[in-house]
Amino acid sequence: MPTERLYLYDTTLRDGQQTQGVQFSTEEKKQIATALDHLGVDYIEGGWPGANPTDSAFFEEAPATTARMTAFGMTKRAGRSAENDDVLAAVLNAGTAAVCLVGKSHDYHVTQALGINLDENIENIKASIMHIKAQGREALFDAEHFFDGYHDNADYALRCCKAAYDAGARWVVLCDTNGGAQPSTISHVVKEVIAAGIPGSHLGIHTHNDTEQAVACSLAAVEAGVRQVQGTLNGLGERCGNANLVSLIPTLLLKDPYASLVHTGVSDTALADLTKVSRMLDDILNRVPSKQSPYVGASAFAHKAGLHASAILKDPSTYEHVDPAVVGNARIIPMSNQAGQSNLRKRLSDAGLVVEKGDPRLAQILDRIKEREAKGYSYDTAQASFELLARAELGDMPEFFEVKRYKVTVERRKNKYNQMISLSEAVVVVKVDGEKRLSVSESLDDDGGDRGPVNALAKALRKDLGRYSAPLDDMHLVDFKVRITQGGTAAATRVIIDYEDGQGRRWSTVGVSPNIIDASFEALLDGINWKLLHDGTD
Amino acid sequence: MPTERLYLYDTTLRDGQQTQGVQFSTEEKKQIATALDHLGVDYIEGGWPGANPTDSAFFEEAPATTARMTAFGMTKRAGRSAENDDVLAAVLNAGTAAVCLVGKSHDYHVTQALGINLDENIENIKASIMHIKAQGREALFDAEHFFDGYHDNADYALRCCKAAYDAGARWVVLCDTNGGAQPSTISHVVKEVIAAGIPGSHLGIHTHNDTEQAVACSLAAVEAGVRQVQGTLNGLGERCGNANLVSLIPTLLLKDPYASLVHTGVSDTALADLTKVSRMLDDILNRVPSKQSPYVGASAFAHKAGLHASAILKDPSTYEHVDPAVVGNARIIPMSNQAGQSNLRKRLSDAGLVVEKGDPRLAQILDRIKEREAKGYSYDTAQASFELLARAELGDMPEFFEVKRYKVTVERRKNKYNQMISLSEAVVVVKVDGEKRLSVSESLDDDGGDRGPVNALAKALRKDLGRYSAPLDDMHLVDFKVRITQGGTAAATRVIIDYEDGQGRRWSTVGVSPNIIDASFEALLDGINWKLLHDGTD
Repeated sequence: MPTERLYLYDTTLRDGQQTQGVQFSTEEKKQIATALDHLGVDYIEGGWPGANPTDSAFFEEAPATTARMTAFGMTKRAGRSAENDDVLAAVLNAGTAAVCLVGKSHDYHVTQALGINLDENIENIKASIMHIKAQGREALFDAEHFFDGYHDNADYALRCCKAAYDAGARWVVLCDTNGGAQPSTISHVVKEVIAAGIPGSHLGIHTHNDTEQAVACSLAAVEAGVRQVQGTLNGLGERCGNANLVSLIPTLLLKDPYASLVHTGVSDTALADLTKVSRMLDDILNRVPSKQSPYVGASAFAHKAGLHASAILKDPSTYEHVDPAVVGNARIIPMSNQAGQSNLRKRLSDAGLVVEKGDPRLAQILDRIKEREAKGYSYDTAQASFELLARAELGDMPEFFEVKRYKVTVERRKNKYNQMISLSEAVVVVKVDGEKRLSVSESLDDDGGDRGPVNALAKALRKDLGRYSAPLDDMHLVDFKVRITQGGTAAATRVIIDYEDGQGRRWSTVGVSPNIIDASFEALLDGINWKLLHDGTD
Repeated sequence: MPTERLYLYDTTLRDGQQTQGVQFSTEEKKQIATALDHLGVDYIEGGWPGANPTDSAFFEEAPATTARMTAFGMTKRAGRSAENDDVLAAVLNAGTAAVCLVGKSHDYHVTQALGINLDENIENIKASIMHIKAQGREALFDAEHFFDGYHDNADYALRCCKAAYDAGARWVVLCDTNGGAQPSTISHVVKEVIAAGIPGSHLGIHTHNDTEQAVACSLAAVEAGVRQVQGTLNGLGERCGNANLVSLIPTLLLKDPYASLVHTGVSDTALADLTKVSRMLDDILNRVPSKQSPYVGASAFAHKAGLHASAILKDPSTYEHVDPAVVGNARIIPMSNQAGQSNLRKRLSDAGLVVEKGDPRLAQILDRIKEREAKGYSYDTAQASFELLARAELGDMPEFFEVKRYKVTVERRKNKYNQMISLSEAVVVVKVDGEKRLSVSESLDDDGGDRGPVNALAKALRKDLGRYSAPLDDMHLVDFKVRITQGGTAAATRVIIDYEDGQGRRWSTVGVSPNIIDASFEALLDGINWKLLHDGTD
C-alpha cells in the first residue's frame, strides 16, 4: 500500500443539497451520513448551521461517526470581529470537530461582490481561521473561485491561501466554483501553489461538472499533489453537480497512477457496497438510477454487441475494465438486434433453455427478435417476454388459456354529489381447459381512487382463470413504463411492465401497439404466462 | 483562428445505438443525421451495413450531407481475401464515401478472441485498408483496445496502427474500448505514437465513459496531438456511454488550451443550436433530458444559493463559466426568491401577459405551480398549459365550452373473418353556448388501422364544438409523450402533447392522472383551449 494518505471529504449534505429540486429532511441527512461513514470517507460536511433550519436540526441529532463531522460557513464579514460575527457564531455553535469556511480568493469578487478592499479580505480570512483554531476545532478554508482568481491575479489568490494556511488551517481547498477550469490548468496551478509554499498534504480540491470533467479535474489535482478531494454521492450539486465520489473512489482505489500514489480510508468491503450506497441515495431522492453511471449503473457492465458478448463469455476482462463484483455491481448480457448466437445461447441458458451450438432454431429466434424489434419491441430489459418468445420458437411453450376478447370502458362523469369522477371497467373473456369464462372488474382501489383502465384490465384478466388463478395470487405489478416508439411507418406505444412475486422473483415484459391499452394487455398477458410457466403448472 | 483543423466524428447512429434500450428506426436515423450535419460534424458513422437491417435501410435512404457519411465494419477475417469476405463486402456495398473498420491491436485479443497469430492480424488490417482504398473510398482504422494493448505489448499495438497507416488509412483511431484508461496515460501514449511515426493529423481518439472521463480523455488526446475526436450526442453508447460530443464541442470551441490550438467545422450559429439538438435526441428516445447535463441541461445555468443568485444579478460572469446563450441554453434563477418573481414575469410577458412587479397574484401563480408540480405536472415544456394556469389565476381565462362527461371503449375481439382486431370508440358530451352536444368517434385511421382510445377521444372532442369547431380545423397533434411520475403517494401518469397548426405555431400541454386516459384528456382539453384563446374568439 502506498504510504501517502488521501482524504475524502463528502459534501452531499451541503453542496449536494444545492441541486435543483433537492431538499433533504433531517432524517434523510442522518441516513446518508451513516452510509457515508460506513463507506469510509474522512469528512462529512453536514450543512450550514444557521442558514438553513434542517441543517441546524441535523447537527443537533447527527449520528456518531468515525468520519469527522464538519460544519460549513463563510469567513467573517468586514467591520466586525470574528467573535462578534453572528453568522460565524451559528456555525461554531453546531459544535462539530471541524469547521470549513468559504472565502474569496478572486480579486474581482472581493471588490465587486463583497465591495471591500483586498487587504480587508485577507484580514477576514486570517481572523476567521484563527478564531476557529482558538475554539479547539480543526479549520478548513475553501478558496472560492480559486482557479479563475489565479488566472486573473495569481499573486492575490495565493496570498489568500497563504493567509489561511499560516493562520493554522489544516486544509486549504482550491475551488473551481464556476466549473470552467480544465484538468491541465488545474494540474499546472496546483504545482505552482505547492512550489509557493503550501504543501500538498495541506491542499484539497473542489470541482464542478460544468464541462463534464469534475472527476478528471479532481484526479489531475491528486496527481499534481493535493491530498484531499471534495465531492458528493452521485455527483449531486448545483448546476451540473460536484465531483462524483461514486466514480472517484473506485478509480482512486483501482487505477494507476492513483492507486500506486495514495491510499484512502475506504476498505475493499466498503467498496463492494458502493452500488448499494449510490442506489440508496436515488431511493431517497425518488430518482430512477441512471443506467449509464460509471461503475454502479445497471448498464455499466452490460454488453450489447454480439462480438463483445462472445468474447466476454471466454474472458470477462476482454471487455470489462474492472470486475463488476468489486463495486457491488453485476454483469448483464442483454438480447438485442446486435446480438450474436453465442449471446443468445447464454441468455437462453440463463432462462434454463439449453440449445446446442449451430441449432437452426437459434437463427429463427434471432430473426423473430429482429422482426419484433423493427416493430418497436425491446427485449433488453423484458427478459420474461424474451423467454416466452424463445420457448414459442422452440415449441416449448404451453397454452394455459386463450383470450377470446376483452372490452374496457373509461368514463368520466358527475357522481350523485355533483363531483367529476373517473371510473374504468374491464370485461375479459377467456377459455380455460375448454371452458369459457367471463370476468369483469373495475379500476377503483381500496380508497375508492380510480387507478385507470390498465388496472381494471389486469384485475379482470386474473380474476377467473380456473386452476391458474391461485398461482397468480402472490404476483404484483411493480412498475409500468410507457414509451412512444416508431414502429414501422407510424408511431406505436411500447409498454414495459415489471412484476414481483412472493418468492422475491422479479420479471419484466413488453407489449407494443398503436393502441396503448392493447400494448398494456400484451405485456400483462406475458407477465401472467411467465408466472404460470415457472410456478403454476400442476 | 488557430490554423490546425480538428475533425469531429459522430458515431451516435452506430456506437450510440449500442446503448441498452436504444434502437433507432430508419426515420429516426435520418432525422439525427440531418441534425448532425447542421451542427457541423465532419463524419457521420451511420451503422454497420449487413449486420443490422435498420442500418442497411438507413444507408439506402440516407440524406445528402456535407458531413462524410461513413459505414462501419470490421477488418477481413483470416483465411480469405478481402475481396472474398462477405461481411466486408456488405459494408462496401453501402456505397459511402468513407469506411471505418475496427480491428484488433491488443495481442491477447488476437490470439484469444480471434484465435489467429499476430502476423495474420497485421495482414488482415493491411489487406482490408488497401481493399477500401482500391475502391476509391476514404479508409479509417479503429484500433480496438489500443491503450490496453499498448500497456501489454506496445510494439505490437504500434505495428497494427502502422500497418493501417502505411496501407493508406486516412485516420488511425486509438480506441479505449473498455473505458478504463486514464487521461494522463492517454496523453503519454499518444505522444509516443506520434514519436513512432504516425502524425497527429492522422490520429483519432475514441473513448468510453467507464470512469466518467471520456470527455477528459478525448481532450487529453487532443492536447497531446490527435486531430480527430469520435463521440456521440448526449454520450450515448454501450455501458456508460461514449465521449459526449455535446460537452466536447463547446469546450473545444470556447476553452483554452483547445480553442487556441485547433478549430472545427462547427460555427457559432450551429453552437447556439446545441441545446436544441441535445433535446431533440432525448425526444426521439422519449427520455427525460438530464437537468444536470453540462452546457445544455435545464439546471446547467440554474442558480440556487441566495449568495450566488444575488451576485448573478450584478454580473452573470461571477457564477457562470460561459454565457448560456452561446450554447442555446438559458439562465434560471429559482422562483422561490425575489428573482423568481422577475423570472415569472418574464415568462408571463412571453405569453403576452403583463403583470406589474409586486402584484400579489404573482405569488399566487407561483404557489399554484408548486402545488401542481408536487402532483407530477411539469411546465418546463408545457408552455401552453402554463399560460392557461396563469390566466386562470389572473381571472383572464374565458370558458369556451364545458365538458359534461365522456366515455371511451376499447374492444379487442374477432371480426367476421375470424381475425383479432382492436377498436376504440369515444363519446364526448359538451355544453357550448348553453347547448348540450353529443359526439361520437372511433379510432380507425384512413387505412382502417386502429389508432387507440386517445385518438378516438381527440376526434370526438373536436367533432362538434359549435362555433368553436372551425378554428380547430388546422390544428393537429404532433407528438404524444407518456411518463410515469410520482404524484404524491402513488404513481401518476403524465402526458405531454405537442400540437401544430396551419400557421406554423407549435404548443405543448400537460395532463396528470393515475388514469392515462384522463391525463390524456386533460392535455387534449388544454391544447384546444389554447388554440381557441389565440385564434378562435370572434
